[in-house]
Amino acid sequence: MKISNVMEILNEWAPESDALEWDNVGLLVGSEEDELTGILVALDVTAAIANEAKELGSNLIISHHPIIFNPLYSLRRDEYPASVIVQLIKNDLSLYTMHTNLDIAEGGVNETLAKRLNLKQIKPFSDAELGSLGRVGELQSEVRFDDFLKELKSALDVESLIYNGDTSQLIRKVALCSGAGGSFIKSAINMNADVFVSSDFKHSNWLEAGDRIALVNVGHFESEEVVLDSIIDKLGRRMDGVDISIRKAKSESKPYKLYNSVKNG
Amino acid sequence: MKISNVMEILNEWAPESDALEWDNVGLLVGSEEDELTGILVALDVTAAIANEAKELGSNLIISHHPIIFNPLYSLRRDEYPASVIVQLIKNDLSLYTMHTNLDIAEGGVNETLAKRLNLKQIKPFSDAELGSLGRVGELQSEVRFDDFLKELKSALDVESLIYNGDTSQLIRKVALCSGAGGSFIKSAINMNADVFVSSDFKHSNWLEAGDRIALVNVGHFESEEVVLDSIIDKLGRRMDGVDISIRKAKSESKPYKLYNSVKNG
Amino acid sequence: MKISNVMEILNEWAPESDALEWDNVGLLVGSEEDELTGILVALDVTAAIANEAKELGSNLIISHHPIIFNPLYSLRRDEYPASVIVQLIKNDLSLYTMHTNLDIAEGGVNETLAKRLNLKQIKPFSDAELGSLGRVGELQSEVRFDDFLKELKSALDVESLIYNGDTSQLIRKVALCSGAGGSFIKSAINMNADVFVSSDFKHSNWLEAGDRIALVNVGHFESEEVVLDSIIDKLGRRMDGVDISIRKAKSESKPYKLYNSVKNG
Amino acid sequence: MKISNVMEILNEWAPESDALEWDNVGLLVGSEEDELTGILVALDVTAAIANEAKELGSNLIISHHPIIFNPLYSLRRDEYPASVIVQLIKNDLSLYTMHTNLDIAEGGVNETLAKRLNLKQIKPFSDAELGSLGRVGELQSEVRFDDFLKELKSALDVESLIYNGDTSQLIRKVALCSGAGGSFIKSAINMNADVFVSSDFKHSNWLEAGDRIALVNVGHFESEEVVLDSIIDKLGRRMDGVDISIRKAKSESKPYKLYNSVKNG
Amino acid sequence: MKISNVMEILNEWAPESDALEWDNVGLLVGSEEDELTGILVALDVTAAIANEAKELGSNLIISHHPIIFNPLYSLRRDEYPASVIVQLIKNDLSLYTMHTNLDIAEGGVNETLAKRLNLKQIKPFSDAELGSLGRVGELQSEVRFDDFLKELKSALDVESLIYNGDTSQLIRKVALCSGAGGSFIKSAINMNADVFVSSDFKHSNWLEAGDRIALVNVGHFESEEVVLDSIIDKLGRRMDGVDISIRKAKSESKPYKLYNSVKNG
Amino acid sequence: MKISNVMEILNEWAPESDALEWDNVGLLVGSEEDELTGILVALDVTAAIANEAKELGSNLIISHHPIIFNPLYSLRRDEYPASVIVQLIKNDLSLYTMHTNLDIAEGGVNETLAKRLNLKQIKPFSDAELGSLGRVGELQSEVRFDDFLKELKSALDVESLIYNGDTSQLIRKVALCSGAGGSFIKSAINMNADVFVSSDFKHSNWLEAGDRIALVNVGHFESEEVVLDSIIDKLGRRMDGVDISIRKAKSESKPYKLYNSVKNG
Repeated sequence: MKISNVMEILNEWAPESDALEWDNVGLLVGSEEDELTGILVALDVTAAIANEAKELGSNLIISHHPIIFNPLYSLRRDEYPASVIVQLIKNDLSLYTMHTNLDIAEGGVNETLAKRLNLKQIKPFSDAELGSLGRVGELQSEVRFDDFLKELKSALDVESLIYNGDTSQLIRKVALCSGAGGSFIKSAINMNADVFVSSDFKHSNWLEAGDRIALVNVGHFESEEVVLDSIIDKLGRRMDGVDISIRKAKSESKPYKLYNSVKNG
Repeated sequence: MKISNVMEILNEWAPESDALEWDNVGLLVGSEEDELTGILVALDVTAAIANEAKELGSNLIISHHPIIFNPLYSLRRDEYPASVIVQLIKNDLSLYTMHTNLDIAEGGVNETLAKRLNLKQIKPFSDAELGSLGRVGELQSEVRFDDFLKELKSALDVESLIYNGDTSQLIRKVALCSGAGGSFIKSAINMNADVFVSSDFKHSNWLEAGDRIALVNVGHFESEEVVLDSIIDKLGRRMDGVDISIRKAKSESKPYKLYNSVKNG
Repeated sequence: MKISNVMEILNEWAPESDALEWDNVGLLVGSEEDELTGILVALDVTAAIANEAKELGSNLIISHHPIIFNPLYSLRRDEYPASVIVQLIKNDLSLYTMHTNLDIAEGGVNETLAKRLNLKQIKPFSDAELGSLGRVGELQSEVRFDDFLKELKSALDVESLIYNGDTSQLIRKVALCSGAGGSFIKSAINMNADVFVSSDFKHSNWLEAGDRIALVNVGHFESEEVVLDSIIDKLGRRMDGVDISIRKAKSESKPYKLYNSVKNG
Repeated sequence: MKISNVMEILNEWAPESDALEWDNVGLLVGSEEDELTGILVALDVTAAIANEAKELGSNLIISHHPIIFNPLYSLRRDEYPASVIVQLIKNDLSLYTMHTNLDIAEGGVNETLAKRLNLKQIKPFSDAELGSLGRVGELQSEVRFDDFLKELKSALDVESLIYNGDTSQLIRKVALCSGAGGSFIKSAINMNADVFVSSDFKHSNWLEAGDRIALVNVGHFESEEVVLDSIIDKLGRRMDGVDISIRKAKSESKPYKLYNSVKNG
Repeated sequence: MKISNVMEILNEWAPESDALEWDNVGLLVGSEEDELTGILVALDVTAAIANEAKELGSNLIISHHPIIFNPLYSLRRDEYPASVIVQLIKNDLSLYTMHTNLDIAEGGVNETLAKRLNLKQIKPFSDAELGSLGRVGELQSEVRFDDFLKELKSALDVESLIYNGDTSQLIRKVALCSGAGGSFIKSAINMNADVFVSSDFKHSNWLEAGDRIALVNVGHFESEEVVLDSIIDKLGRRMDGVDISIRKAKSESKPYKLYNSVKNG
Repeated sequence: MKISNVMEILNEWAPESDALEWDNVGLLVGSEEDELTGILVALDVTAAIANEAKELGSNLIISHHPIIFNPLYSLRRDEYPASVIVQLIKNDLSLYTMHTNLDIAEGGVNETLAKRLNLKQIKPFSDAELGSLGRVGELQSEVRFDDFLKELKSALDVESLIYNGDTSQLIRKVALCSGAGGSFIKSAINMNADVFVSSDFKHSNWLEAGDRIALVNVGHFESEEVVLDSIIDKLGRRMDGVDISIRKAKSESKPYKLYNSVKNG
């Protein structure tokens, strides 16, 4: 089985041509002609991930974030991200990336996240310009905002959340966008969502929300990590009977830690 | 005393023409011809701040962030930020904004922050393209990273910090940038800083830093709030003898809250 | 009845989405949620118009020209057009603007003008790029150009006209464009019009016309003022039975005067 | 004497490199190597002007306005302005154009106009962005606006003027800009001019002026025609002793006529 | 018969609207209203071609390359290409140009070239972005590359060819693009062509081809000259019975010569 | 000795910052921290060159042309130029490129070429916009063009040349531009050069030259290959005493061959 065969399966699910115009997806490093020896799935490609793949003897890494975002004018080993790309090349590893095409896809990042939150009547954002990146849905029944936070924390296994708004308010309609969704706040308000779950909110996003919508900032990592199982599941079913290791990376975790008053005070 | 007189004092300190090209500073609402009745100083202008100014009888608000960032095609009361501007207009309040010009200024946001962190040999970033927004300096002596975090938390009176890197590493050279400084990580690395203190880091920023520099994400609000006293101090000394109230806003705070396992579990 | 109800009526007639890309139409000031107290119709919003609306107790002004053309970076009371917008806001007046969407609309500015000139077989300009702003039609019978000028002057009640071309030539096919139509001269020539009626011609427009087409420059104001009755008429019929004052502004007139040899010499 | 010799004289006075970036000046048609047979000076090049030059046996036309403004993709005899260029070429006529470089030049269009109005302390507009196109100066003493209009009409020998503002107000500081000066209204206000004299004002210009400055719209032609004598004078002095005809065009006049109530009613 | 009648015939064959966006085609000089006196067909319009047309008494030149590519800001007789345009104008010659629209047209440049090379199953390039400029087809049977070169040289009557690749390799699938086709090398590789025939290859084109495809650089002139007969043929059939001379230019040839060791050493 | 030490020497000679804005120079692959094991100098980096360096045990290639011109969105081994970059990375080879900075440099490409042609009074092109890429100089004495061609062929050891113009004309002033110089023809004419020597002329270049200047198209490769000795010479003198191999690539040659009538007919 060749790497190109895996690419066909994934491209059928989340076509590369569905990616937003500014995005960079597909086979970013390696060669589609290489014989497949194993698959490692991760959100990002780092030195640790490349190492893990090498040690596993898996020569295909599937990532969510494109390691090349600004196109490269040089490949200097002492510069990031060239350093990681050099490591991939020297170890004959290929890298296949599904980014906004996976955000959008049926069963992709946003839909997986919406299901993890137990939303019903899940629909894409009705915002033609920005594609159907986000999802909006309804909880089974109205809940207090603090109960919602508690369940969200547990559902995503998150250490902490950041939010604004009155914790006693009642929540039913939930909008969400995996990854950095600050530019969708206005859309979420226009859809009359009670709360918008996303990540990487900037200062101005919190002000824009004000008291017009509750925001919950789960981590960027946590909002997307849920999709790794979906990828593995999809490949497992499509490659049933093929003797190839398909694994979720172990050397990946949230890229920062919380230092707070209770634990450290 | 007119509002224009206050503008002259501030413009001398942090000239409007020093603001970066994309920025929007100066008198954004009101009239410089109005007789000054009092000054309220805040990072942002919100409905609560406008209310506080009105109740204080202070007709000049000095803010750090420009309430008009994308220029306005309409002034509809049911849209943000027009809603706040309408409130200012209806209450005859003027708004004067110092943003990147204050970041850059001597004694401005970044310098105040650097002093609060007890840095010595404070210098601007040597990054011509982006202006001298950030500052770099040295601690009196090398300290462990976790000791640095502890002191930082206390110096800025922050509830929690987010960071990456080994807490046992030794820190001496500190780069910092008030507000959202993610685009300066490369500069901080190039200056061989041990740690970069800023806010609003995105997922890709943490990856870019990797193990090449320690990052500390203090809140956007907390990294800039320190400058309010500098503004009040500057005006107080220049308006000595003038019977005008100059106050820091009470109705302003970090625009989000932390929901975490210890307190809420 | 709310302001939004009037907006629905007008938007059905001349949809906001029909406006050219560079245009700025719709509710530019105020709130669609306000209860309607009366309607004042004018080509432009000036301090005098705002005053007239206030005195009439009419809280909705409908204008043809957008008061915000270049989007606003500030709302300073001592600058134009912010000064007028501030006046609207302080008096709780809303402003709804129909500009190129009304030029284009059936029964809109150009069609009203064409009918006032008694044209037959009225058709839009066949100029796809620029929308169907202008109209072309035929006089009942061929007339001398000076007779046409005489009738035009009387039909629009204009103090004076500016024109080029031989007054003894015969005219039948008439192209017209309300407002500033200098960029349509080539289109008018290509349609074999005998005369092109519009306003705000620049020096280069007269040269471009040369002896290839007769131009008549009626005033910008006079070419568009005819539509105010159409608006009032449209609203009157759609709001039949609603007890709301709908009036044409009295404090509006051509914004300049002629100083010439006969009267003043 | 060659055409290039005349070009040198003119280029020394109003250097081609002084023209604004969007402008098109210099030798636009013909050849600088041709032997000079005579000079005809005009604001514009039209079929009539080309004919006059041909009949005079003068092979150099000096114009103010560039006949090629939008660069040409074709030279079709049935299109304007190609038709005039073809006429020039077929009759071996050269065309030299001085436009914004002449507006700006010492002794150029604006300065000539300012002197014709008897202004004192004549200075360029202090508007760095737009070059020193306009001029501002003071009348010997304060006069009523209607007296100013009367004198202006007589000084420029204009059939009629268009203006706004109260005719009884007192005028002293006069700003002016030959040609179409609508974009300088704000500058004129900022310089505290009492009146701004220019041409080709659009509807929005009159509104922008409002009651903040008096505007006078002399014709585009009349505001610039005064410079033709300056050109002839300059060449006459520099070509003293050379037996070459240098004449102002006779076949040129204001490109439109006034049709008004008194004369035609 | 008017020039416009010839334009109609040609426009039906190779519509002007089919030309690529950056191209400049159609009647570039003259007038469509002129009575046709004869047709001269050439790839380029030069002084020699204009002269030939004049001497033949043929007032319409049909060219492949547009003489105006960068639009003209002046028509100076001492500058190229204005010098040629002036010559056309002075001799009342019209110029009609078919460029990329003729490259693309059925029976146009590329198809004529493909037939001259005896290709079978001729198809346009499957490269949507760049239009169907090139063609790809198959030789009747596989041939050695050096035999292909020999036949190509003879078929196009070329003095010399430039090529890369092993002359003993076998060739069957041939891609070609008349004129400068360097930007299509990647497309030719993607279509698995064995050889790509075009002209004006730059240094980087040869490197890009490397050993992945054989390139043959026939001259630009020679790759396109074949179409002149197609034009004459097309007009001859459509103007059958009309007594008008339609001729291929005699004063046109490859614009450079080869100086090499054998002939000149 | 590190690769960075060689970079310092070269950067002093032909500073990277002198390269034109669109260019891509400097260390394009590898790491400046690597210990230098040998230097291979070539115009281009190809698979063969990378192989030669590897076999020589030389880990630094110095090239003239940047292998990355359009920045890279992926590093796929089956695509050019990524295939070559991958080969460099896998063999721990570094690549340093001097392109337009070397064209411009004193003793760089153009100056070396001018000296090889025995020009005197060598000066840069006086064309501010495009940098001083080309050179102009004078032959010791006037020679016939065919004698000049003969000498040029011999001086550059070229198999053949392409030229236009009358071979009996006399030549003295020679303009030249290494590499593709078609855009400098106008400059060469304006400097009154008799002949312009460059490469990669396109069809339109030959027409532009017409009979106004003689062109000689030496190969792109041959016009630049002369600089390799200059680089080796410069490094040899600056690294005198250092035991490092500095060699000109053997596996590089003109990337195409001539197939012509005499040899192959």
